[in-house]
Amino acid sequence: MDTLEKLIQSITPPDQAAVAAARARQDTLTKPLGSLGRLEALSVQIAGITGRARPLLLHKLLITMAADHGVARDGVSLYPAAVTRQMVLNFLTGGAAINVLARHVGARVTVVDMGVSGGFEGMPGLLRRPVAGGTASLSQGPAMSREQALQAVTSGAEIVAAELKNGLDIVGTGDMGIGNTTASSTITAVVTGVPVAAVTGRGTGLDDAGFKHKVTVIEQALALNQPDARDGLDVLAKVGGFEIGGLAGVMLGAAAAHVPVVIDGFISGAAALIACTLAPALRDYLIPAHLSVEKGHRAVLHHLGLVPLLEMDLRLGEGTGAALGIGLAEAAVKILNEMATFGEAGVSEAGDA
Amino acid sequence: MDTLEKLIQSITPPDQAAVAAARARQDTLTKPLGSLGRLEALSVQIAGITGRARPLLLHKLLITMAADHGVARDGVSLYPAAVTRQMVLNFLTGGAAINVLARHVGARVTVVDMGVSGGFEGMPGLLRRPVAGGTASLSQGPAMSREQALQAVTSGAEIVAAELKNGLDIVGTGDMGIGNTTASSTITAVVTGVPVAAVTGRGTGLDDAGFKHKVTVIEQALALNQPDARDGLDVLAKVGGFEIGGLAGVMLGAAAAHVPVVIDGFISGAAALIACTLAPALRDYLIPAHLSVEKGHRAVLHHLGLVPLLEMDLRLGEGTGAALGIGLAEAAVKILNEMATFGEAGVSEAGDA
Repeated sequence: MDTLEKLIQSITPPDQAAVAAARARQDTLTKPLGSLGRLEALSVQIAGITGRARPLLLHKLLITMAADHGVARDGVSLYPAAVTRQMVLNFLTGGAAINVLARHVGARVTVVDMGVSGGFEGMPGLLRRPVAGGTASLSQGPAMSREQALQAVTSGAEIVAAELKNGLDIVGTGDMGIGNTTASSTITAVVTGVPVAAVTGRGTGLDDAGFKHKVTVIEQALALNQPDARDGLDVLAKVGGFEIGGLAGVMLGAAAAHVPVVIDGFISGAAALIACTLAPALRDYLIPAHLSVEKGHRAVLHHLGLVPLLEMDLRLGEGTGAALGIGLAEAAVKILNEMATFGEAGVSEAGDA
Repeated sequence: MDTLEKLIQSITPPDQAAVAAARARQDTLTKPLGSLGRLEALSVQIAGITGRARPLLLHKLLITMAADHGVARDGVSLYPAAVTRQMVLNFLTGGAAINVLARHVGARVTVVDMGVSGGFEGMPGLLRRPVAGGTASLSQGPAMSREQALQAVTSGAEIVAAELKNGLDIVGTGDMGIGNTTASSTITAVVTGVPVAAVTGRGTGLDDAGFKHKVTVIEQALALNQPDARDGLDVLAKVGGFEIGGLAGVMLGAAAAHVPVVIDGFISGAAALIACTLAPALRDYLIPAHLSVEKGHRAVLHHLGLVPLLEMDLRLGEGTGAALGIGLAEAAVKILNEMATFGEAGVSEAGDA
């Protein structure tokens, strides 16, 4: 059995005893039954994932993966491809949105070069796992080889395995890569079967002509590459990206270690489509942070059967929505852990009226 | 000019220079224009309220007001009225949901007795401003006198004025009062003009028969009391509650001091309806934390033209949703304050592609 197959096999359903115990405790806390809605559900989900009736989220991590995309040369973004590299440097000096929001929720950030043009040899604070210096353009042929796709996914899982040693109770996913909404729309069209124009958005801010061009590029890529929707590695190789593969690996690695995964917006959603195609049991380990403005995200979440926690009209990526989602997840487990029960507080229960 | 009139006159429109400066700074930060959506809008709103282009939210406060309702004797709740008192004690010992979530977002909690049956003489940690030991039942006549309504509102504003000395950059509102969804539905029906059945919910968990009874009680209260929708004090006096009046006063007092107000769910929403009827300029100072499951809340927010930040299926009150909203507001101002600009980070801008 190869490494990926072993990883997939190790993702088991959530612990039903922990789910039942958490649910039972929620119903003894000093509030009307079910009155904290999704906070209660979230705490129960995390209990099931971690196998602990009263989980703690002490060690919080955001993994932000960056890579370049050959398709960026096809004029699908307002920003030059050099911005991927510039933003990685911004992450490392702490000035980007993800740094601010990670500090806000008390999470550490691991920035990973999955394949940024030019490389970052000797750069302190950066995890270097480049598959190559960017993908080939999916408009001209496959974005990467199947071996490269496997390498990206495996690297992501290994990064999580290594982070376990630093303490890891919850992980959020994030991305940076000029051109990666094009790859994500293409993945989404393949896996969900929704038409390209309905899952393609304006990325960092395309106008009407730019949008039309982006749809044409994606339709050509699909016609040329013919990815197999049932084969996650095939989809990733033909129309994906190195950071997307890495994030799929992060999700698989976290689930295998019983660590809940807060997924960010559209790019993380595309990675989740790849990862859930490889390992359908992964789905129960995913916490969808928010609904992105980026049009295809709704189709992603619908396909996975996930309901986002937040609708804040975000479309930045980096893990910014995931950071906010981690804050809500922590609030949820604190409710489960820290509230008094009716008995402890001497409060009358429903039906005593 | 009386005290309330002075308070109302002192609520002025947000500072447009601070709004413009915050908006301009958002557009220089290292992210695509507008890509942090409602976080950006929230930071700009808070800049306008505080009159600071780069506001800080260091001192965060939740004010949870409790009072009893005569209508609780009419069988409109699953819980006995004694729970109002029991929950106040739970707030003071730190075991309630609001304590947990306030700690999570780093906010202090001020618990106020606005009129709980039995009183709390000499109770440490509690602010005692009881108007009376509970309202009269709105099903039998006015819930309180006009003088009592004025006293409740004035007390709320005075509490905020006193809290300014402890440092106050943002305030969240919360409530506790068995029977108070009945009062809030009645207020909502009066002020919004939406039919009673469409703004009445199941409170802490009524069944179909209980719900039908609650609607009948409210319709009778309206027919009997004939509150004047244009007169906020009249509505409060005839069909409101002491905590609802107090929270309206908190909102007015905060706005007068240029402090943003995060409003919780349905009860705080009813208080906002009263407060905005008294002072329409208040609206721009309100940050709606979430959409409650409690049915009438949608009509409240629609009437006020406010879009909630969260939809987490909460229906607890206490200020629990407001606490989460304060966390998001703080994230928003940190983005404005702490992110690097394109110039500082050496990142290329849109159009350089």
